[in-house]
Amino acid sequence: MVLDPVLLAQDLIRRPSVTPADEGALGVLRAAVEPLGFVCHPLRFEEAGTDPIDNLYARWGNGGRHFCFAGHTDVVPVGKIEGWSVDPFGAEIIEGYLYGRGAVDMKSAIAAFAAAAADFLADNPGLDGSISLLITGDEEAVAINGTKKMLDWLKAKGERLDHCVVGEPTNPRAMGEMMKIGRRGSQTGYLSVDGVQGHVAYPHLADNPVPKLVKLLMALGNGAIDDGTPHFQPSNLEVTTVDVGNPANNVIPARAEAVFNTRFNDIWTGESLEADIRRKLDSVGVEYQLKCVTSGEAFLTPPGELSALVAQAVEAETGRKPDLSTTGGTSDARFIRYACPVVEFGLVGQTMHKVDERVAVADLLSLTKIYRRILDGYFGA
Amino acid sequence: MVLDPVLLAQDLIRRPSVTPADEGALGVLRAAVEPLGFVCHPLRFEEAGTDPIDNLYARWGNGGRHFCFAGHTDVVPVGKIEGWSVDPFGAEIIEGYLYGRGAVDMKSAIAAFAAAAADFLADNPGLDGSISLLITGDEEAVAINGTKKMLDWLKAKGERLDHCVVGEPTNPRAMGEMMKIGRRGSQTGYLSVDGVQGHVAYPHLADNPVPKLVKLLMALGNGAIDDGTPHFQPSNLEVTTVDVGNPANNVIPARAEAVFNTRFNDIWTGESLEADIRRKLDSVGVEYQLKCVTSGEAFLTPPGELSALVAQAVEAETGRKPDLSTTGGTSDARFIRYACPVVEFGLVGQTMHKVDERVAVADLLSLTKIYRRILDGYFGA
Repeated sequence: MVLDPVLLAQDLIRRPSVTPADEGALGVLRAAVEPLGFVCHPLRFEEAGTDPIDNLYARWGNGGRHFCFAGHTDVVPVGKIEGWSVDPFGAEIIEGYLYGRGAVDMKSAIAAFAAAAADFLADNPGLDGSISLLITGDEEAVAINGTKKMLDWLKAKGERLDHCVVGEPTNPRAMGEMMKIGRRGSQTGYLSVDGVQGHVAYPHLADNPVPKLVKLLMALGNGAIDDGTPHFQPSNLEVTTVDVGNPANNVIPARAEAVFNTRFNDIWTGESLEADIRRKLDSVGVEYQLKCVTSGEAFLTPPGELSALVAQAVEAETGRKPDLSTTGGTSDARFIRYACPVVEFGLVGQTMHKVDERVAVADLLSLTKIYRRILDGYFGA
Repeated sequence: MVLDPVLLAQDLIRRPSVTPADEGALGVLRAAVEPLGFVCHPLRFEEAGTDPIDNLYARWGNGGRHFCFAGHTDVVPVGKIEGWSVDPFGAEIIEGYLYGRGAVDMKSAIAAFAAAAADFLADNPGLDGSISLLITGDEEAVAINGTKKMLDWLKAKGERLDHCVVGEPTNPRAMGEMMKIGRRGSQTGYLSVDGVQGHVAYPHLADNPVPKLVKLLMALGNGAIDDGTPHFQPSNLEVTTVDVGNPANNVIPARAEAVFNTRFNDIWTGESLEADIRRKLDSVGVEYQLKCVTSGEAFLTPPGELSALVAQAVEAETGRKPDLSTTGGTSDARFIRYACPVVEFGLVGQTMHKVDERVAVADLLSLTKIYRRILDGYFGA
């Protein structure tokens, strides 16, 4: 191989790029792909009240079909350091596993793609097409100064992406089980009720907001809110917290608050979901305040050319026909889907965000071959 | 007068005896009543995990009918000091009002009773009877090392009380409006539900305790739980807090808690109330933990000799026939009622526990005369 995916993954893991820090991680990637002919655009974005974030857009070629690989070099915190059996940024290989924060989510997938592209370009030096890397440092946190702003930047420059694969870990237990062709949307509701504080012995002088909030939460419900759609599981609402914070059991409190989050399928938009929630709450007949924040709309890249290409590459390499799923949390694909068709395929997610995050070296090599097969198929090589 | 109630009230207010501190307040009282022939027993009680508390039992006479006046020298904190227009412990008299923390709750009532007793004993030096003061320093807080332990001490010494008046402020707006012949009980319930924490995107791997708690709180209800009784208003339950404390809106929490307080009338005992609450909660069919703490049972001193005596004294002095009420919060009468018939009459409570707590000097003099009339009536003088 022109580029060793294991060595590159180790180099990336050794940079402690916990969001919003970069710690040189993007520089490692740049140094690896620039010699291959990728033109690199380091993109630093910032916005009042947020941390400035480093990102990298690297493109090989100027014309033809444009295939983009998207991912992130930032990682979540190590968590309980005493729970780790190795240095989280040591990138040690022990009994066939490469350990470290970001090993599966998702530095190794970036390394796999860079190695696959290097390999492919070595065999196809005169390719009439473009291959790019769209790598952010702001996926694990607020995602404000990352993929979204990079896509705006690309649009402003007139750069068009034709198809994209995001390298997030998509397999529950073994390589080849699952790819993602969409994601549910996510909306958080902030609900509150104001009352009048008073002494419990004189309830007629007070107005307790707690029973009102309880009635609203009963009307809101919890759990599935529809029956799902052909490619999506049922939308699901969870009340994540209720807080009054009144330490005095002889005092009727002045305010009660609750927060709930809905993961919703393609029946809904954030707007129609909020309208439905308000309808349910209004039926109770008490005054409330509600603020809904949609962090991502549901989206689907309907099964077609792109998903078939990825599924074939996966099956050829692993012998498994991957499920075309829309389960799980959100990813930056929620932004990319506005630019071009996007699907996701990566490593086994089992240890992501946990202590002793690790990837089987065999999986990393397998993923590199899968990405190579995708490029072969895409460019008809 | 032998003893000036205004000067004594001022002396008491100038001691900043915020529970559990005494700051010499009981010593001021002792110095006032010892010269009158009261035998004083300073009683300090303590218990592991609580503050030691100073109390005072002072008795005049050894035999005959025994009339007891009960009260407390401890006061609640001053609260927002910048809200006061005077020094809360300065005991200033401005335009006919004596200002200070404890002015109505209830140092002035203690001064009024001491002055009334001094006056009465000056006129009846050969009285065949006993008059006592049962004064605690632990009414405004947990009431563990106060009246309850004093009554145990009296019982152990073979001291019997025949009748008691508690000097808590009982009048809503003007002297003579209201006396109390009982109090509702108070019970606090601590309710919790355990679940299994997880990610909102994977609800099938978690078990959200919040909707279960919401259902329990719906079944529990809020507000009146009966229609009241001849001498009591309806029992009332208030949910005072609900707390989950989960800051992450993508996480299903592991536990949800609520606290509620019931002020209950003589239909209930703490035990029967808890049984009723458990019946309501059990009907939901989810697992929960509940701990009920009854801080006082409901009690009634049925209208009779004692209430008639106090009502007549009040009417003779103020021209008003006081309501025989059982409203409001709890008082130490909840302990005394096990020792002897007890009713309550004191000052106007409007400013109690507030900034600029104050008593009209005229009210303090009026109360002194009322207490004197009660002693006259009681001992048939």
